[in-house]
Amino acid sequence: MSIRDYIKGLGRQAKGAAVTLATVSSTAKNDMLTELARLLRAGQADVLTANGQDLEEAEKQQLSQAMVDRLTLTPQRLEALAAAVEEVRTLPDPVGEVAGMTLRPNGLQVGKMRIPLGVVAFIYESRPNVTIDAAALCVKSGNAVILRGGKEAIHSNLAFMRLIKGSLTSAGLPEHAVQVVDTIDRRAVEELLKLDDDVNLLIPRGGEGLIRYVAEHSRIPVIKHYKGVCHVYVDQDADLDMALAIALNSKVQRTGVCNAEETLLVHAAVAETFLPRFIAASKEQGLELRGDPRTVAFDPATIIPATEEDWHTEYLDMILSVKVVDSAAEAMAHIHTYGSEHTDSIVTENYTTAHAFIRGVQSSLVLVNASTRFNDGGELGLGAEIGISTTKLHSFGPMGLRDLTIEKNIAFGNGQIRE
Amino acid sequence: MSIRDYIKGLGRQAKGAAVTLATVSSTAKNDMLTELARLLRAGQADVLTANGQDLEEAEKQQLSQAMVDRLTLTPQRLEALAAAVEEVRTLPDPVGEVAGMTLRPNGLQVGKMRIPLGVVAFIYESRPNVTIDAAALCVKSGNAVILRGGKEAIHSNLAFMRLIKGSLTSAGLPEHAVQVVDTIDRRAVEELLKLDDDVNLLIPRGGEGLIRYVAEHSRIPVIKHYKGVCHVYVDQDADLDMALAIALNSKVQRTGVCNAEETLLVHAAVAETFLPRFIAASKEQGLELRGDPRTVAFDPATIIPATEEDWHTEYLDMILSVKVVDSAAEAMAHIHTYGSEHTDSIVTENYTTAHAFIRGVQSSLVLVNASTRFNDGGELGLGAEIGISTTKLHSFGPMGLRDLTIEKNIAFGNGQIRE
Repeated sequence: MSIRDYIKGLGRQAKGAAVTLATVSSTAKNDMLTELARLLRAGQADVLTANGQDLEEAEKQQLSQAMVDRLTLTPQRLEALAAAVEEVRTLPDPVGEVAGMTLRPNGLQVGKMRIPLGVVAFIYESRPNVTIDAAALCVKSGNAVILRGGKEAIHSNLAFMRLIKGSLTSAGLPEHAVQVVDTIDRRAVEELLKLDDDVNLLIPRGGEGLIRYVAEHSRIPVIKHYKGVCHVYVDQDADLDMALAIALNSKVQRTGVCNAEETLLVHAAVAETFLPRFIAASKEQGLELRGDPRTVAFDPATIIPATEEDWHTEYLDMILSVKVVDSAAEAMAHIHTYGSEHTDSIVTENYTTAHAFIRGVQSSLVLVNASTRFNDGGELGLGAEIGISTTKLHSFGPMGLRDLTIEKNIAFGNGQIRE
Repeated sequence: MSIRDYIKGLGRQAKGAAVTLATVSSTAKNDMLTELARLLRAGQADVLTANGQDLEEAEKQQLSQAMVDRLTLTPQRLEALAAAVEEVRTLPDPVGEVAGMTLRPNGLQVGKMRIPLGVVAFIYESRPNVTIDAAALCVKSGNAVILRGGKEAIHSNLAFMRLIKGSLTSAGLPEHAVQVVDTIDRRAVEELLKLDDDVNLLIPRGGEGLIRYVAEHSRIPVIKHYKGVCHVYVDQDADLDMALAIALNSKVQRTGVCNAEETLLVHAAVAETFLPRFIAASKEQGLELRGDPRTVAFDPATIIPATEEDWHTEYLDMILSVKVVDSAAEAMAHIHTYGSEHTDSIVTENYTTAHAFIRGVQSSLVLVNASTRFNDGGELGLGAEIGISTTKLHSFGPMGLRDLTIEKNIAFGNGQIRE
């Protein structure tokens, strides 16, 4: 069979499974998740053996240490994965929820009912745990899913797929509810991007290169998770102790994540008091600073002059760009120009400034007096998340189960016709 | 200036305007709409002159009567357009709405605030009234908009644009809040489809060819309005008088619309009672029937045997395909296979069957005991609509003002950092 026919077949099978999945009981879906968690514990040996094959291959290919780390499964990681599946099981099922029923003047009762999207496809890179996370979230939200992981994780992904198949069968769910693309041929991705008749949503997970490739070539709607160029703005009316804690925490608590601060903006009126303290704390933490001329002037020996490029950069590292601004409006204009609509925070005690920032900054999370690191499904109370959408359509910010559903309209009549 | 630079410029200008539009008061937006309605009445002569130029050109090009009709503006049509703009003004402004504020365990208060999408682009065909409708809905929802109408309506669209510019200026809104592509060069569309950095949503309006072209080539997210292959299913437990009224109204009340019935499904247990009445009524109405063998058997002289193609077809005409089925499950399976997830209705007095149909059919509107013709923003209580989305993402069904917005997350803290 050609790659094209194989991928088309996956699409058709997924669409068939989706019809059934849309109306199965929450109990059946929860049973699948219970069994999957059990198998993740009982089947550890098989998964670790398969993962060993991937790691052996990774060594031959001389993959980077970071990639090998993302690829590696351990008994602890498998236990965490099983616990995550159990957490998804405890979340409320959004499917079937009815809202907004109103009575029209002609007596027609109309409202909305929440339904699955249908078929979701994931294209991701080396982390095999995405296979389990995505399968759990899609099945719980009643969606069929097609998974295309990285070629370097193929053995691990196929081992996971065996556990998923077992749990689907055990719960009496359609066998094609979850499918893994079992070839590492690159053309499989190209063909997957053409399945617009059968796949409702495509979610790429991985580096910016992968996401841009998918967004440019897909005929299927894509929800993107682009980079986070996140800002903390220390206002003239900030509590400066609080500002110091938030500006540091947003950066150094974890640097390699999309909700970490990349640029600090400081109001000129507090720069002389605040920046020397911040610069001293940065030195203690080993944080490299790149500043505009006014910032550099505070410590020309250690602060590197920032280039235009710096304001656009997601360092994902112990580097921070710093700029002095003359007003909250200038801070917001900087965020509009250089930000990525991901996460931005203001530190201020001024009521009007706080509300102007909340209203005026159009990012997926806008905070007052808190760390940017809170842009996370768990921290915002969503439960498990699929990722943080920077697409301002359908879903903006951390995506949970509800973001894999949509509302259809329903109407109960008693013979209404249109005049 | 090259077409590419021209279109890129429109995108950048729209994005700039969107920053301001996102936070302007409802009063300013309503003032613009009041003035636009006034100008549509006061400036009728100019618009009709421009429209005359388009109609003259249309005659030279020998456009079809249907196209000329869509293109034609009259004083009555302009008055209706002014009234539609005034209706949009009376709708509540969805922007700024805050929902779901909850307190996290760490004291962070989190919730969602509704914001505009940013920049919306419309690509449409001959109907110049889309220029006014789209401008009104986008401005009211705080979105900048780029409009690309059909080349045959270019003079009318530019005349409308002069009125829009006047109303924007009068209300103190950014001049680039609404822009019309002023060239009929086809390459303008190609370039528009590449503006994924500046445009958040693309809405094509027109024939299936245009929509498919846009969906295949756009890098910008597209909300599609595809065809409606809508079904009425007459169940074995139907009130047959009601079924007759609904099956006829869904088809003949207006045939050239996407929510008109294209296929009638009849349960075998009532076929002998129902179909002869329906066939007689169809003859009176001049409705052509195409049936499966069991339907044809009721009147072989006049009912044309349906081909496989018929079940897929949106006739938009006085033609209806009819099939006898043996169960509600078979009716739903037929709808899954041949339907377009647009609008489907069941006629039944059976509680369990009604709820199984409402739950099991995944269309943008699913009805019990009512005409498919109710799938319309006005009829469902949305107010003005942009169209009926058949994309099962972001918005499914009639799209109103709210569908041009999205929620961002907001958080009010008092110094929270992540441990």
